[in-house]
Amino acid sequence: MDTIRLINIVWVFVASCLVMFMQAGFAILETGFTRSKNANNVLMKNLMDFCIGSIAFFVLGFGLMFGNDAGGIIGTSGFINPTGLNLQAFKDLSPTVYLFFQTVFCATAATIVSGAMAERTKFKAYLLYTLIISLCIYPVSGHWIWGGGWLAKLGFVDYAGSAAVHTVGGVAALMGAIALGPRIGKYNKDGSSNAIPGHNIPLGALGVFVLWFCWFGFNPGSSLEAATYVGHTALTTNLAACTATIVTMFVTWYRYGKPDISMTLNGTLAGLVAITAGCHVIDYYGSIIVGAVSGVLVVFGIELLDKKFHIDDPVGAVGVHCLNGIWGTIAVGLFATKTPVTSAVTGLFYGGGFKQLGIQLLGITAVVLWVGITSFIMFKVIAKTMGLRASAQEELGGLDIGEHGSQAYPEFITK
Amino acid sequence: MDTIRLINIVWVFVASCLVMFMQAGFAILETGFTRSKNANNVLMKNLMDFCIGSIAFFVLGFGLMFGNDAGGIIGTSGFINPTGLNLQAFKDLSPTVYLFFQTVFCATAATIVSGAMAERTKFKAYLLYTLIISLCIYPVSGHWIWGGGWLAKLGFVDYAGSAAVHTVGGVAALMGAIALGPRIGKYNKDGSSNAIPGHNIPLGALGVFVLWFCWFGFNPGSSLEAATYVGHTALTTNLAACTATIVTMFVTWYRYGKPDISMTLNGTLAGLVAITAGCHVIDYYGSIIVGAVSGVLVVFGIELLDKKFHIDDPVGAVGVHCLNGIWGTIAVGLFATKTPVTSAVTGLFYGGGFKQLGIQLLGITAVVLWVGITSFIMFKVIAKTMGLRASAQEELGGLDIGEHGSQAYPEFITK
Amino acid sequence: MDTIRLINIVWVFVASCLVMFMQAGFAILETGFTRSKNANNVLMKNLMDFCIGSIAFFVLGFGLMFGNDAGGIIGTSGFINPTGLNLQAFKDLSPTVYLFFQTVFCATAATIVSGAMAERTKFKAYLLYTLIISLCIYPVSGHWIWGGGWLAKLGFVDYAGSAAVHTVGGVAALMGAIALGPRIGKYNKDGSSNAIPGHNIPLGALGVFVLWFCWFGFNPGSSLEAATYVGHTALTTNLAACTATIVTMFVTWYRYGKPDISMTLNGTLAGLVAITAGCHVIDYYGSIIVGAVSGVLVVFGIELLDKKFHIDDPVGAVGVHCLNGIWGTIAVGLFATKTPVTSAVTGLFYGGGFKQLGIQLLGITAVVLWVGITSFIMFKVIAKTMGLRASAQEELGGLDIGEHGSQAYPEFITK
Repeated sequence: MDTIRLINIVWVFVASCLVMFMQAGFAILETGFTRSKNANNVLMKNLMDFCIGSIAFFVLGFGLMFGNDAGGIIGTSGFINPTGLNLQAFKDLSPTVYLFFQTVFCATAATIVSGAMAERTKFKAYLLYTLIISLCIYPVSGHWIWGGGWLAKLGFVDYAGSAAVHTVGGVAALMGAIALGPRIGKYNKDGSSNAIPGHNIPLGALGVFVLWFCWFGFNPGSSLEAATYVGHTALTTNLAACTATIVTMFVTWYRYGKPDISMTLNGTLAGLVAITAGCHVIDYYGSIIVGAVSGVLVVFGIELLDKKFHIDDPVGAVGVHCLNGIWGTIAVGLFATKTPVTSAVTGLFYGGGFKQLGIQLLGITAVVLWVGITSFIMFKVIAKTMGLRASAQEELGGLDIGEHGSQAYPEFITK
Repeated sequence: MDTIRLINIVWVFVASCLVMFMQAGFAILETGFTRSKNANNVLMKNLMDFCIGSIAFFVLGFGLMFGNDAGGIIGTSGFINPTGLNLQAFKDLSPTVYLFFQTVFCATAATIVSGAMAERTKFKAYLLYTLIISLCIYPVSGHWIWGGGWLAKLGFVDYAGSAAVHTVGGVAALMGAIALGPRIGKYNKDGSSNAIPGHNIPLGALGVFVLWFCWFGFNPGSSLEAATYVGHTALTTNLAACTATIVTMFVTWYRYGKPDISMTLNGTLAGLVAITAGCHVIDYYGSIIVGAVSGVLVVFGIELLDKKFHIDDPVGAVGVHCLNGIWGTIAVGLFATKTPVTSAVTGLFYGGGFKQLGIQLLGITAVVLWVGITSFIMFKVIAKTMGLRASAQEELGGLDIGEHGSQAYPEFITK
Repeated sequence: MDTIRLINIVWVFVASCLVMFMQAGFAILETGFTRSKNANNVLMKNLMDFCIGSIAFFVLGFGLMFGNDAGGIIGTSGFINPTGLNLQAFKDLSPTVYLFFQTVFCATAATIVSGAMAERTKFKAYLLYTLIISLCIYPVSGHWIWGGGWLAKLGFVDYAGSAAVHTVGGVAALMGAIALGPRIGKYNKDGSSNAIPGHNIPLGALGVFVLWFCWFGFNPGSSLEAATYVGHTALTTNLAACTATIVTMFVTWYRYGKPDISMTLNGTLAGLVAITAGCHVIDYYGSIIVGAVSGVLVVFGIELLDKKFHIDDPVGAVGVHCLNGIWGTIAVGLFATKTPVTSAVTGLFYGGGFKQLGIQLLGITAVVLWVGITSFIMFKVIAKTMGLRASAQEELGGLDIGEHGSQAYPEFITK
């Protein structure tokens, strides 16, 4: 048995477990940042998307993503028996460890959507669309980027998935929020918007801390091997997240008069999402700049979406994952430079010219279009057939009672 | 220093830490799924069983479990100084890493009991019985299975402890719930049963996510070495848990009209428990079937216990750990087949005949009898001497005030 | 690529992630143990100290701590570009992994302070003092102990930071609590003290479980290499924590008539803090004694501070980190003995005489004086200039509304 391979397995498997634990982070983040009457429903959705996604990706998705390439567009083998494929990663690690790693990544993309569509989506419709995302929407663009498809061949760089995971989840979240329409009572006749604060900020904050912790599996684990440079991706990830948090805090302080906690926590996530694509090719101070930009972007993005476009995204998932997924993907074309990980890519600001930037822009456009169009069609078809939105009565009374016949906090008296 | 041994140490130690963190999962799961007036008490019990169990297992339990075998029944050396033993596992890993790994497994078995006995057990009695479980009940059957005792010699297969941990904890939980009797107000004179919902479902749900995460230390870590097949045990664990969750959700949907969150979360745990014995010798689709069965079993088991037998188990610990621990142990005899981990065992459904199934049935019967009888005697003796159950006054007012003089949420107004 | 080095990297990086996750533990521990009206503020402070500290330590602190030694007092190189230093640890691991490991340790020291100063510190002042701690107070004493400074040269032993992290954080916490004065309503005119219970004990308890879990990165990870003895430090850590918890429980039971949950949870942390300095050179039963003493110390320490000195420390951070950090540092001089980790140091009780004890006493005195004096000056200067304490109006109404314009639980009705 090859010793190096064993070390790689231990590292990548532990990283996979951290990524799996992101499910807990997303579940309580979304629960804490929405209303108590929908808490059980949010939890159930987060639970079920992982369960359905894991099986869908095992049976079909993995083959679409990593099976034999057809025209750079799609994988065509490995269905039903994904570990029967003959991949290099199977040899460097083991088929099962690599499959598990990819499964938890797929589940991350799927679970992002639930936040933007919280508090009004029919449970049955949720089960269906999360199945479709894991079964084919995520795997196809995933094939382009990580499965040897056309973007990979072009030299598109997306280390741990600003595009492949976060933009995919974020764009589907945006389409879902548009297709659903805003929650009852969110917007007034005069066009102004009402804040609907989350019911349990400590729970949501814990979710962010959990996600941050797990991101050290998500980004450094994308090395797919134990290596000295693992620390580089951890440092850039951390510096970007810290800077984004600080910047978001000051931006909210300046704009709203006081440092805002929910937005600042979203700032942390924004920084994490933005550095994900380039954490290996961006240096320390580059990652600080990438984080700083994401800290601004998340505030204005969430405000714009809400105040200007009246798209109701209860937890800010679009501002975090879609906008910063796109920003992070583009940032590779600007900030990539020689690092301990690689010296193969150079961005505009480090003398690499427009080439990589162009590839990044092309790639992220393709991903946004692919996910935007397919998920919009999907949501529209669901809306026309089984219905996408819960009844007004259920929404007003809370999806917990309406969809599950239970309450999250049956003993506490709420307003 | 042997390189492979160092890799094994890193892997098994990290897995041990995950198993240790299960204590957090069980603590908040049980807290969330019971009433707020008993939350501090539930937390204290979960905290103390780990503390008492860790020391009891160090001083005596480990020697009973892994010391020199006497007649296949019991270990007889290594008391007081457990790392002084001369075990093969001490050489493959290190004495302390192996001891730590076994300690956190023991603590898992002990902590399962508290859920079924929540909301009415006297704190003092709890401290005593958890000491006895860690000191001798768990180690003896553990010796049979993992310590080179008679079941190990027979070829009984229990990879990560469906029998050794979960059935042991689950049967003790059942005996405890029987010995205690139901909570005041649980059953009506006409024989009907009142649901007593948990007070904080998000906390309980977080507990399940934590446990799921930690299970990737529990099952894959039972390899006791870094190996390519670690991923196989992770995949089967995950597939079983996902399937069980989905099946439980649909069963509750069908039976109760709506998908039930508490039961579905128990479904996740049921699948995890059931695949624990055979996660290494069962293949992907076998694990899906094992999980599916456990998802049905947990619903009907919990219902039967409650509605038919009037055994009051506040969190469903018996349905999860006892029933599915037994099911998982038997499932090895049905579904074992050639996998990347091993090709040594073949179950009935894969052409292995009844031999392994017979061994599994014999083994699980022995474990159930051992734990059932000893724990029942223990609970009865405690009940007759120091008393097992809190006073009715304490129970009605809540064990937090009665036993600890404090409240879990002193600022919130509850019903 | 050197195989052993890769194993070391995987181990130390995973341990670093666990230490990073302590931020979550401290955040929810402090939140749960204080009042709901200040929950968002506590969370924000815990979030920001990590963000500010990470960047401050990167830019300046690491160089002060590990740069070229000047007179045993201070490091003088590696500023702005810390990974450009030429350290042995950079070669054994990698520059970035070692830097990340040290960064999360620094953040732990900084975050301890917030607990003792909770519920009345101005947010702006918090941001400034946490910056100063990470930028220079922690790194200087850290240089003495771990950076090759005068204490290191003397033979001062502090494996994972009872002194370097916990005493530093705990002394700064004490000075902060003194500089601030007690919360409004904490002490009565007759000199008696009012208990101000935490608002969410399950959240606080989860914080303690998280910290315990993460401590297995903190102490065993301080090996800075994969090694057979990693398990020894885990076992002593666990035995001390378990014993401390049990002892604290019984002490509170004896003194207050009932086993107290908040104090018992602090007992767990006390044991963890106390064993941190000597977890590698203290044997199993030595660690049990160290833990037992810490379990007594934390109760009487917290009582003394409160009842006798009227120093208001809302979460007991001084009793846990300052007193037990000091105790743990001294304990090395008493209990150090031959273990699988080392045979270089022997304490008084194992025949080593007073030499090591003298060094430990000298070292801890120096650390206490350094941190005590500098942090007291810092707090006084902040108090005189920007102001350290929130206005009475903000304090009474809650810092969440006053400082952040939001509530942690806007839907729940509180007393």
